[in-house]
Amino acid sequence: MKPADQDSSFSIPSTMKAWVLDDPGQLRLTEKPVPQPGPAEVLIRIDAVAFCDGDIRIITRGPPALIQGGLPFNKNFTPGHEYMGRVVKLGAGVDEYEIGERVAVEVHFGCGRCERCRAGMYTSCINYGMDCGTHNKGHRANGFTTDGGFAEYAVNNVNTLVHVPDDIGDEEATLIVTAGTAMYALDTLGGLIAGQTVVVTGPGAIGLMGVAVAKALGADPVILTGTRDTRLNLGKQLGADHLININTENPVEAVKRITKGKGAHYVLECSGNPNGLNDGMDMVMRGGKICLIGFANEPVPVDLGKLVRNHISVFGIRGEGKSATHRAAALVAMKRFRPKIIHTHTFPMDELPTAFKYSRDRIDNAIKVVVKMRDN
Amino acid sequence: MKPADQDSSFSIPSTMKAWVLDDPGQLRLTEKPVPQPGPAEVLIRIDAVAFCDGDIRIITRGPPALIQGGLPFNKNFTPGHEYMGRVVKLGAGVDEYEIGERVAVEVHFGCGRCERCRAGMYTSCINYGMDCGTHNKGHRANGFTTDGGFAEYAVNNVNTLVHVPDDIGDEEATLIVTAGTAMYALDTLGGLIAGQTVVVTGPGAIGLMGVAVAKALGADPVILTGTRDTRLNLGKQLGADHLININTENPVEAVKRITKGKGAHYVLECSGNPNGLNDGMDMVMRGGKICLIGFANEPVPVDLGKLVRNHISVFGIRGEGKSATHRAAALVAMKRFRPKIIHTHTFPMDELPTAFKYSRDRIDNAIKVVVKMRDN
Amino acid sequence: MKPADQDSSFSIPSTMKAWVLDDPGQLRLTEKPVPQPGPAEVLIRIDAVAFCDGDIRIITRGPPALIQGGLPFNKNFTPGHEYMGRVVKLGAGVDEYEIGERVAVEVHFGCGRCERCRAGMYTSCINYGMDCGTHNKGHRANGFTTDGGFAEYAVNNVNTLVHVPDDIGDEEATLIVTAGTAMYALDTLGGLIAGQTVVVTGPGAIGLMGVAVAKALGADPVILTGTRDTRLNLGKQLGADHLININTENPVEAVKRITKGKGAHYVLECSGNPNGLNDGMDMVMRGGKICLIGFANEPVPVDLGKLVRNHISVFGIRGEGKSATHRAAALVAMKRFRPKIIHTHTFPMDELPTAFKYSRDRIDNAIKVVVKMRDN
Amino acid sequence: MKPADQDSSFSIPSTMKAWVLDDPGQLRLTEKPVPQPGPAEVLIRIDAVAFCDGDIRIITRGPPALIQGGLPFNKNFTPGHEYMGRVVKLGAGVDEYEIGERVAVEVHFGCGRCERCRAGMYTSCINYGMDCGTHNKGHRANGFTTDGGFAEYAVNNVNTLVHVPDDIGDEEATLIVTAGTAMYALDTLGGLIAGQTVVVTGPGAIGLMGVAVAKALGADPVILTGTRDTRLNLGKQLGADHLININTENPVEAVKRITKGKGAHYVLECSGNPNGLNDGMDMVMRGGKICLIGFANEPVPVDLGKLVRNHISVFGIRGEGKSATHRAAALVAMKRFRPKIIHTHTFPMDELPTAFKYSRDRIDNAIKVVVKMRDN
Repeated sequence: MKPADQDSSFSIPSTMKAWVLDDPGQLRLTEKPVPQPGPAEVLIRIDAVAFCDGDIRIITRGPPALIQGGLPFNKNFTPGHEYMGRVVKLGAGVDEYEIGERVAVEVHFGCGRCERCRAGMYTSCINYGMDCGTHNKGHRANGFTTDGGFAEYAVNNVNTLVHVPDDIGDEEATLIVTAGTAMYALDTLGGLIAGQTVVVTGPGAIGLMGVAVAKALGADPVILTGTRDTRLNLGKQLGADHLININTENPVEAVKRITKGKGAHYVLECSGNPNGLNDGMDMVMRGGKICLIGFANEPVPVDLGKLVRNHISVFGIRGEGKSATHRAAALVAMKRFRPKIIHTHTFPMDELPTAFKYSRDRIDNAIKVVVKMRDN
Repeated sequence: MKPADQDSSFSIPSTMKAWVLDDPGQLRLTEKPVPQPGPAEVLIRIDAVAFCDGDIRIITRGPPALIQGGLPFNKNFTPGHEYMGRVVKLGAGVDEYEIGERVAVEVHFGCGRCERCRAGMYTSCINYGMDCGTHNKGHRANGFTTDGGFAEYAVNNVNTLVHVPDDIGDEEATLIVTAGTAMYALDTLGGLIAGQTVVVTGPGAIGLMGVAVAKALGADPVILTGTRDTRLNLGKQLGADHLININTENPVEAVKRITKGKGAHYVLECSGNPNGLNDGMDMVMRGGKICLIGFANEPVPVDLGKLVRNHISVFGIRGEGKSATHRAAALVAMKRFRPKIIHTHTFPMDELPTAFKYSRDRIDNAIKVVVKMRDN
Repeated sequence: MKPADQDSSFSIPSTMKAWVLDDPGQLRLTEKPVPQPGPAEVLIRIDAVAFCDGDIRIITRGPPALIQGGLPFNKNFTPGHEYMGRVVKLGAGVDEYEIGERVAVEVHFGCGRCERCRAGMYTSCINYGMDCGTHNKGHRANGFTTDGGFAEYAVNNVNTLVHVPDDIGDEEATLIVTAGTAMYALDTLGGLIAGQTVVVTGPGAIGLMGVAVAKALGADPVILTGTRDTRLNLGKQLGADHLININTENPVEAVKRITKGKGAHYVLECSGNPNGLNDGMDMVMRGGKICLIGFANEPVPVDLGKLVRNHISVFGIRGEGKSATHRAAALVAMKRFRPKIIHTHTFPMDELPTAFKYSRDRIDNAIKVVVKMRDN
Repeated sequence: MKPADQDSSFSIPSTMKAWVLDDPGQLRLTEKPVPQPGPAEVLIRIDAVAFCDGDIRIITRGPPALIQGGLPFNKNFTPGHEYMGRVVKLGAGVDEYEIGERVAVEVHFGCGRCERCRAGMYTSCINYGMDCGTHNKGHRANGFTTDGGFAEYAVNNVNTLVHVPDDIGDEEATLIVTAGTAMYALDTLGGLIAGQTVVVTGPGAIGLMGVAVAKALGADPVILTGTRDTRLNLGKQLGADHLININTENPVEAVKRITKGKGAHYVLECSGNPNGLNDGMDMVMRGGKICLIGFANEPVPVDLGKLVRNHISVFGIRGEGKSATHRAAALVAMKRFRPKIIHTHTFPMDELPTAFKYSRDRIDNAIKVVVKMRDN
């Protein structure tokens, strides 16, 4: 924490460099006013930001269908939601954070006025909408509906911050929110997973963080399925007890084998494979639960009778609810697992479009590609 | 309750009449030994039994795929699970019920030894199996895996009984377990539904009971969709606020209209329509929940992305867990709704195959067809 | 709903009549500026307000100890939190309510920025504080920490409103929030209470509403204990199955007798009797739950070993969380019970101190004393 | 796992050595028939057993008041419930465990027929009773109501076993159930405790295991209070971040200091201090939760108003429900913490009364005193 007399070291300019989205896939560096934090908000000086599949979707295809208000293209909109940095200015009444404090972010600040927010379900906020820079009901989802982290500064509600200790690097800190999503997925499945069998299908960033969080909380065994041995091996480093390359072994049979015919308690479906849910239903035991994070872009055939006969629950989740990012951050701070393992590339701010390409095309086996927004 | 000195009125014979399943669809009346109640069990003299879709499935096609141990055909197996009658003999140590007490039944007595039963999830019992008369792990699901109610007597664990007051008729009492399944569906959706929008799709027996229980617990509005106005009108009698005949109106649009664009909180999908789940996902608001009771026999295309983007949960349920039948029975006893409304036909015991046909083919608009197992 | 062209009928003055609290127990009528609704807020023209024990405590002794910021006396503070009226002005962005709509209120609008609010626990808001007119973290608890309903107008967040149908009178509508507190108590106990034994100890306003809501949700039996037969008899009108006058019968023994030795599932302790919790522990069966609403002003001896040995949970609750008021309002709108039964007296606005006295001293068997804030 | 052909190595005698309880405090070594496992049961050859405070209470004062059926003295009753050993015989139908498998035990096998067991709340079993050797409703609580582990053999339901890996020693394995109780306490408080403040008051065996489990699940900080620095230091070894010796610092003030005024999320009250609950209420933040494990033998003054005003929940718990022992065992198997740290003394079977004395009188700073039931 900086002493108060060093606050002046954060001299805040009136304008900042920011990437904005023109036509689909077109990112352009421009100058924007530095935003002002309102009540319960702070200004973050962004140090690093990671690319997530969600960013790629927004940049190339626009927002998810649920978003109202049209497409984000050519609206001066700044994407990017997995960022970290330092608090440099406090909005009115803020004493939860201090000037100079290092923080990572959660994406969702609910409107606080709809029935879902009122119930604590802020990632299901009814007023989630695509405003691309304006917001009339108070909901912020930086990088989705309000300006995000591909810029030098961003405004965040105090609710959406987590403290980052000094011994966690900038790149790693950008991944805390990814771990937070994995944590939320496990929460949704019940949370009490020590000694329970968790299958993670698909070794993408969230899947790999799912492995790490599940193992940190005591899940046993943790089984990871995928097609690429390099990624599966990262899963091993993060705590997977069994790796199944589905090109060489039927994953359902493998799960049955490993669990001695019992099946798994929980499945985190992160593959988006057209048969992902059906396989999941065959992997879990009666009364099992499946969290759906990945999904195919088209409708896929699902044998719903299995859900009923085997008393299976399926949870579609969006984002990182229930303050799960705080719990994930605590595990990272205690070094229970190292998100760093999935960080593969770093680029400087002015090469952000290259970073985008690496992430989108998985160039050089890219998983998590981070952009450093300033030299430090 | 009968006074003790009338207990002798229940002279129990050594054999009984019982219907058994020969080839698919073939029911045959035969003679069987009257079963003996073990510890924690009682013997029920069956007074009435109703047909349920589950019975029809078992009788015509065999048990659900999850059941181990082969098909029930030509095994001297007695189907039937929606029955009621009187306690006529107590197993060792039973003091929970009295001789002469009128009772209805739940289907599932879990094995009590698997991890699901240990957690109170007895309808997800891992040892659920198709023994058709023998059971080696202790699980009973009368009419599914152990002998059921198409007979003069049956043995039930005390856990699977609910008291029936004198002013509820035999036919109505057979429907308490149907209401129990509907209650369990609503429990699964959260249970706190007063003032919440509940859509029930499909006015079958469980759907109609779903309407009744939802309204009794204060759901508002309750919306019922279906294709036949006669059944929809029964839904109205049971408390539906809005009826949607999907032959004349798009049900998703109707729900949006009724809820002023907000969507529903909960959907009980009881139609088994191939598009049932997709429609349900379009009906619920963000963060909504869908209970899946009906399902198509084949895999159907499902847009899983909607589950994820809109943070929707889908609960396949089996049977009537969480002692929901007790809660349903309490509402029936208080006359909060009348299951009787869905009872359409009664036959005597020796015409049970006719009752089966009426139920299967919905002859004469049959909904709940009851067989009286004795003259009284 | 008034048509839009009648909106002008709500001409809003710049000042209003308001009662303020001088010294303890001293209410004075004065003139105040009409407050302005901010974003997500509306202005309510108050039609009626009821006295609650909480008001009496605030007026005579000051706020509960948890409140920061000193006592409310001589600060121009307007008490009163059980009010209803009409929406007469919408803050920026409000479309959840319409001009002219009749509404009742919840007390608590959480700050929306602390971890409890983030989790939906807004009645446990960490930033709850005694500002008596100013609020720096955004929390409002009208009548407790921000200006309340003993005035002609008040500002409410849209989160704290419930619609009142035309056929519910003004006086009755003020009691919806009382029923909401009772609903929240039952939610806290698990919510699924059909067919379960609920004991309510103490027939005050919340206790009586507890009886009504419990019965409406199917609790059976509902047992009410108290000392005054007049109040117990109101409980009977609201659905109590058994009345126990503790002056003539030991309430623990009575509960055992009624439940045939089993004990109750749930106790709502509303008496504040020094032995209330101990008695509750003796009333519930193993694994039972007790909601604590009433309490003695001094520490009382409690046999904590009983809690442990009998696996009993005790829930202190504050206010009406989990949007329980909406669920209560739905039951009232459906006429499942009539809060009106506990309304005993009405006074005009300028006799508010008399109303206070009737309520505080229970003059003329007063239970709920309502003040009509305008002639209509 | 032993190969099948070695099963014969477990030749089972017809009688066994067993300690029984004569007068209070009087343990006598005798000969008893080796019990036979029934369906769903196994016979355990006991290798080691630990003393717990519960044993001491039973041996010196008799069972907790809730137990029906009189005192255990002079009834040939064998106490002891924290034992481990090997499965040496399988009851009918058992395939969940194998002959030769090392296992530790849970205490509670619910009756399986009461409404609590039906709901998975088997440690709140209504039919829990003091049979001291006979049991008519099926409930077993070995060492409390049925013969326990101060003998060469015991019968256990398969539900009450957990597998012990080879690299966990006998002494350590006896402590798994202690860790299971601590796990259950944390489950009861919500279970999702990563990054949350947990205060454990009282560094007894359960308190110390509470520290260990809380830290293993990511609680941060974990604060331990007590009076003896030796025990506090064991807490440090098990993961406590802050130690508070209440002889030198006010524990409430210390918690406030450590949490920067916020207070703790959760308190595990294990001290039994007369002011334990009051202190706990002052330690937790609004909306906090307290699990009560320790308690004074007499009623103590409690300021119940604080529970209400601060929306605090208090959970009395009994035993190790929700299969928590399995989760605890998984963490021990993964070496997330070492229960061994609290094991201080070992005695051979024939010195069991000495072990009892060491445990009761805390001779030589005894915490966990283990008796090896055979030479190996």
